[in-house]
Amino acid sequence: MSRRLRTLADLGESALIERITRRAGSAPARDWPLGIGDDAAILRPAPGSDLVLAMDAQVEHVHFRWGRETPRTVGRRALVVNLSDLAAMGAAPVGCLLSLAAPSMLPVAVFDGLIDGLVEEAERHGCPLVGGNLSSARSSSLHVTVVGRVPIGRALRRGLARRSGKRPARASLGPGDTLHVTGVLGAAALGRVRADQLGTRWTRVAEPRLGAGQRLARSRATTACIDLSDGLATDLAHLLEGSGLGAEIDVDRVPVQPGFVRRCAALGVDPLELIARGGEDYELLFARRPGRRPETDRALSARLGVAVRCIGRVVERPGVRGLPGGRAEHHF
Amino acid sequence: MSRRLRTLADLGESALIERITRRAGSAPARDWPLGIGDDAAILRPAPGSDLVLAMDAQVEHVHFRWGRETPRTVGRRALVVNLSDLAAMGAAPVGCLLSLAAPSMLPVAVFDGLIDGLVEEAERHGCPLVGGNLSSARSSSLHVTVVGRVPIGRALRRGLARRSGKRPARASLGPGDTLHVTGVLGAAALGRVRADQLGTRWTRVAEPRLGAGQRLARSRATTACIDLSDGLATDLAHLLEGSGLGAEIDVDRVPVQPGFVRRCAALGVDPLELIARGGEDYELLFARRPGRRPETDRALSARLGVAVRCIGRVVERPGVRGLPGGRAEHHF
Repeated sequence: MSRRLRTLADLGESALIERITRRAGSAPARDWPLGIGDDAAILRPAPGSDLVLAMDAQVEHVHFRWGRETPRTVGRRALVVNLSDLAAMGAAPVGCLLSLAAPSMLPVAVFDGLIDGLVEEAERHGCPLVGGNLSSARSSSLHVTVVGRVPIGRALRRGLARRSGKRPARASLGPGDTLHVTGVLGAAALGRVRADQLGTRWTRVAEPRLGAGQRLARSRATTACIDLSDGLATDLAHLLEGSGLGAEIDVDRVPVQPGFVRRCAALGVDPLELIARGGEDYELLFARRPGRRPETDRALSARLGVAVRCIGRVVERPGVRGLPGGRAEHHF
Repeated sequence: MSRRLRTLADLGESALIERITRRAGSAPARDWPLGIGDDAAILRPAPGSDLVLAMDAQVEHVHFRWGRETPRTVGRRALVVNLSDLAAMGAAPVGCLLSLAAPSMLPVAVFDGLIDGLVEEAERHGCPLVGGNLSSARSSSLHVTVVGRVPIGRALRRGLARRSGKRPARASLGPGDTLHVTGVLGAAALGRVRADQLGTRWTRVAEPRLGAGQRLARSRATTACIDLSDGLATDLAHLLEGSGLGAEIDVDRVPVQPGFVRRCAALGVDPLELIARGGEDYELLFARRPGRRPETDRALSARLGVAVRCIGRVVERPGVRGLPGGRAEHHF
């Protein structure tokens, strides 16, 4: 008698949805009169809030490979990359939906790992899984929609052109604004290079900076914010895009892990390259209008609840000085 | 000199996003202070409404094949299958997000066709494309999230167990309720079979029953509603699932296109099979608590603005009489 792993085809769609529902918790979540199990989920929005919606994906052969990541890591990342978008808008999580495409022959244990990973992050960040879709496909991908909330008009944005006319809820990006990042940069890219070179598993999952983002949204001094998914140079270019402004970066001030440069040398990679274009750090890059007495890194870190470093400033002249260029094209 | 089609890799991500933005219309839509181009879209919910969120996908090799569908048809369907979920909840469209995964080597003309098709339906139904994600992948898939609105507490649901305790906003499914469908059934499945047998294109796109759904949500007589994506038998089973009730269907009353049975015979397929399990009709199946004088098909059709036929009733005894069984597993 042949023994083989149970696959999605063995269980079928209804049983799989039931498995997700059991893992996600069947009780309707706060804000959600109706979760998984109907044609759509129902959200009763809290008064006084804007809602923020983002969508991001983890695709097999592009963002993950079964040999390099565990299913649980992939599931966790699928939600975390989205939560990072909420953080960049200054929003608090409200809930998420998952459109999962996977081969019929995928082992049920892998499916369970994906869902467990996603639900683990969902619970940790108060972002219940309330709906979505299952479909078969030739390879696996997880497409997640997150919903967040932010007080009306207070969502953080990328740099905007300053327009005449009505006064916006917060000041927009301007010359002299200081540029800051949370956490350390380059660590995710280094971990990925290492896993690829040594053939080991890559289990790192970023910490979405939700608390810091919400605190930044409450401060009128914040003039722009973005999350670092594609590397500092690439995302700084995105932050500046609409504004017509430029930036000067002091690369020696960019925060990295202890031993980062040495470990890059051991693997034969350029540390600056990893920082500028490595991506997947999911830290926040934000700009602030400086007050009369600029806030120190230490004071700002204490206020935001996460290590923050000032790494440069916004200038009139377009373009970025002090960093190698970003990648124009990350995904294609 | 070799001439070849321009591909997604030739253009790159930024140019592709710009192409989408141009097609979607760059002006922020009603309800959306911020659309495409930041880390997330911003929605300012209308007071007095619940929001309804659904997610559905169109996956290459599963839901479409480039030889059989045009890119525009695939793009239109990707939104329509989602709008049908809003219709089933009785919701009006508010906006949509698209997570598109596609090979780097996909011709730009195909990409444009997908987006044009989606935006065409988005404009027709007042459901602006406000955000999403692009990613490369080995094959193509479109994962769409739609947001809809419905007056607080009035969303249509599938059949629910009647609970003691607090009185729900509307009556839940009960024995004696009449069962109705909009439009005609089996036509989509027949078209697909025909395209597969003759090797022709399959261009049919369903009409999401948004107006009828919203009118049904306003009527307290409506006790349950679902859209017919997987065939009458399959979706009727879903409608009844939570209620513990059954149904009797008068199959001779199920509405079909003129000449349907004859055309099924010519292609060698069982018409009942197509109706019961063919799927992709995207008509509404709904239940109503009958008043003292039951409404005729004609009167109900006039009130809902679409042809409606009463095809059976809900009974105490679980199970469905009068139809072949549904498919337990549509997608795996």
